[in-house]
Amino acid sequence: MKVQVAIIGAGPSGLILGQLLAKAGIDAVILERHTPDYVLGRIRAGVLEQVCIDLMDEAGIGERMHREGLLHDGIELLVEGKRHRIDLAGLTGGKQVMVYGQTELTRDLMEARKAAGLTTIYEAQEVAVSGFDSDHPWVSYVKDGNRHTIACDFIAGCDGFHGVCRASVPKSAINLFERVFPFGWLGLLSDTKPVCDELIYARHAKGFALCSMRSRTRSRYYLQVPLSEKVEDWSDQRFWDELASRLDDEARQSLVTGPSLEKSIAPLRSFVAEPMRFGRLFLAGDAAHIVPPTGAKGLNLAASDVRTLGHALIEYYGGSSDGIDRYSERALRRVWKAERFSWWMTNLLHVFPDTPPFESRALKAELDYVLHSHAGRTTLAENYVGLPFED
Amino acid sequence: MKVQVAIIGAGPSGLILGQLLAKAGIDAVILERHTPDYVLGRIRAGVLEQVCIDLMDEAGIGERMHREGLLHDGIELLVEGKRHRIDLAGLTGGKQVMVYGQTELTRDLMEARKAAGLTTIYEAQEVAVSGFDSDHPWVSYVKDGNRHTIACDFIAGCDGFHGVCRASVPKSAINLFERVFPFGWLGLLSDTKPVCDELIYARHAKGFALCSMRSRTRSRYYLQVPLSEKVEDWSDQRFWDELASRLDDEARQSLVTGPSLEKSIAPLRSFVAEPMRFGRLFLAGDAAHIVPPTGAKGLNLAASDVRTLGHALIEYYGGSSDGIDRYSERALRRVWKAERFSWWMTNLLHVFPDTPPFESRALKAELDYVLHSHAGRTTLAENYVGLPFED
Repeated sequence: MKVQVAIIGAGPSGLILGQLLAKAGIDAVILERHTPDYVLGRIRAGVLEQVCIDLMDEAGIGERMHREGLLHDGIELLVEGKRHRIDLAGLTGGKQVMVYGQTELTRDLMEARKAAGLTTIYEAQEVAVSGFDSDHPWVSYVKDGNRHTIACDFIAGCDGFHGVCRASVPKSAINLFERVFPFGWLGLLSDTKPVCDELIYARHAKGFALCSMRSRTRSRYYLQVPLSEKVEDWSDQRFWDELASRLDDEARQSLVTGPSLEKSIAPLRSFVAEPMRFGRLFLAGDAAHIVPPTGAKGLNLAASDVRTLGHALIEYYGGSSDGIDRYSERALRRVWKAERFSWWMTNLLHVFPDTPPFESRALKAELDYVLHSHAGRTTLAENYVGLPFED
Repeated sequence: MKVQVAIIGAGPSGLILGQLLAKAGIDAVILERHTPDYVLGRIRAGVLEQVCIDLMDEAGIGERMHREGLLHDGIELLVEGKRHRIDLAGLTGGKQVMVYGQTELTRDLMEARKAAGLTTIYEAQEVAVSGFDSDHPWVSYVKDGNRHTIACDFIAGCDGFHGVCRASVPKSAINLFERVFPFGWLGLLSDTKPVCDELIYARHAKGFALCSMRSRTRSRYYLQVPLSEKVEDWSDQRFWDELASRLDDEARQSLVTGPSLEKSIAPLRSFVAEPMRFGRLFLAGDAAHIVPPTGAKGLNLAASDVRTLGHALIEYYGGSSDGIDRYSERALRRVWKAERFSWWMTNLLHVFPDTPPFESRALKAELDYVLHSHAGRTTLAENYVGLPFED
């Protein structure tokens, strides 16, 4: 078998890239080691930046998203009991974010791919990526007991943090940057009406809390917890009680509780691999970088990577290698700004176990400044809705 | 002897406060342990915010400052060889800063005080502040071998970081916040034409450099150096060579060198004492807080303290104690924002010996963001020219 582009990973990055390439008439295959149901079962992000919305439209699969997604004009910051609304649209010349679950977006992409008759090989085991330092890379995998090989021009590593692509790069060719946070997020998904029309980011002495949602009837709540916590120790009731204690009276009065559909603890991590291109292998999304979820940047950053990569590959087949040559530099500039923002927002809203007293006061002053300065609020808003693309 | 307000320290804070009180008909004395020449000989800040300019006008002593001071509309940031102008006026609705040496400002204040026949006791030794937890505080000092006592309603501690006022507060009543930076600034003053019409803040791999000035013919330059450096090891030539190496070609070509009038190394420190009021004793300026000099906030913060304190005391003698009751809270809110900004600007522009790789990249991304976003540049500009007063 021979294709132009072999995409490793059928999460949102791989699927969006596949769609962009297919629309441009570029022949691509996607290899995925899990089943479609497994991929759909992962509960992930739910807030799309304009860049991600536009990309879904460009890929021709935005129809249901526009019908069912909820456009948000602002977010609420609840700091020590006091609400501060960040008027995202007002501060950024009308930009909004859309609440639309990653699961729904993935489903739309999978269905579009199926309808177009494009090849996705699920349950591909022992995937290997090879020869990307030459002009003739290939990928191989085991399926139903047999090893298969696919020759290609390029490999797109959209296989996440634990994927094979980044791991296949010689250690001497890659620089890793990492910061691990001393706490995690305990998340609960429930079919209950969201406590507020907008997301609430709460900084409380007991720790951060986030009131998010996936739709008008499905809520997603998070609590900052020590990494030593075990999800088994958190009954639904304990979760709801703790959440209520970190909110304000207004939220407590409108909080609708109910049985959890899912409950899990995720660690928070900042991670970047540099560069994002190794010969004919490109990394995109979580394969190259992880952000703490505070700024809702994970999926959006993956989308902006594959936008840049998709355009670069289309340019390549149009006769110019400028796009692929500049992919890593372009993507990383945006990645680092999002890493910086996610880290900053995490620092600002979480309680850290050992913050020195001076830094603790300086941080409160920063919150005070950011919330009360038009320019300060604008920096938060313009990063939250997504910075404009630069060349 | 009996006065309404005893001011300890005849630096700019004490002198401005004395002037404000005198204009309002409040009887005050200033005690200073040094000679007038010693006070004038200290080389300090040179960039005044609008709040400081306005305060000099309010105190009726702005005439020479307006005639000789240089109004600046912007500053230059030189980051890794590239200039970025921060258009202070354009970004803040027309606000400017004024270059006018602290020495000149102090001289104006001293002359105005002398002309008005107001009492300043220089070379007051063994100053003690007492009874400020009662309604009848007093200060005492030794002069010409005799101890003198002054009864007063209030004591204003304008006696700097090493002064007696903060040291006289019981340890249990005060919270200290501190951060020491692992480097200092080597400063050189010379009667040479400044290298640029505006200040240049340079971030270079070898360390921070600042091209500042006191007038059109007097320059003030600084170099970040390790704290282990000794000023004796820095000949003028070595200083000029090192400075040139941290600038860009444009600056190197117009750099005028000459013999130093003064050369010294100052450590960088962030420090805040809370609260700033203890009964009938108030702290103001360096007695209560120190900022690293990167944001030019030291003198300006002292000015904003004495503005708040002066108005509060005038209000008190007008019949309301609201101002003195809220002094500490009001002053500290502004202090912490300036501490935050000075710390941030220091972090952004200096080279730290042990920055972890992730933080180092995140910092570069922050600079990239701040310099290329209108909102980002505005946050820098509005803090640099001085945040508006809040109630």
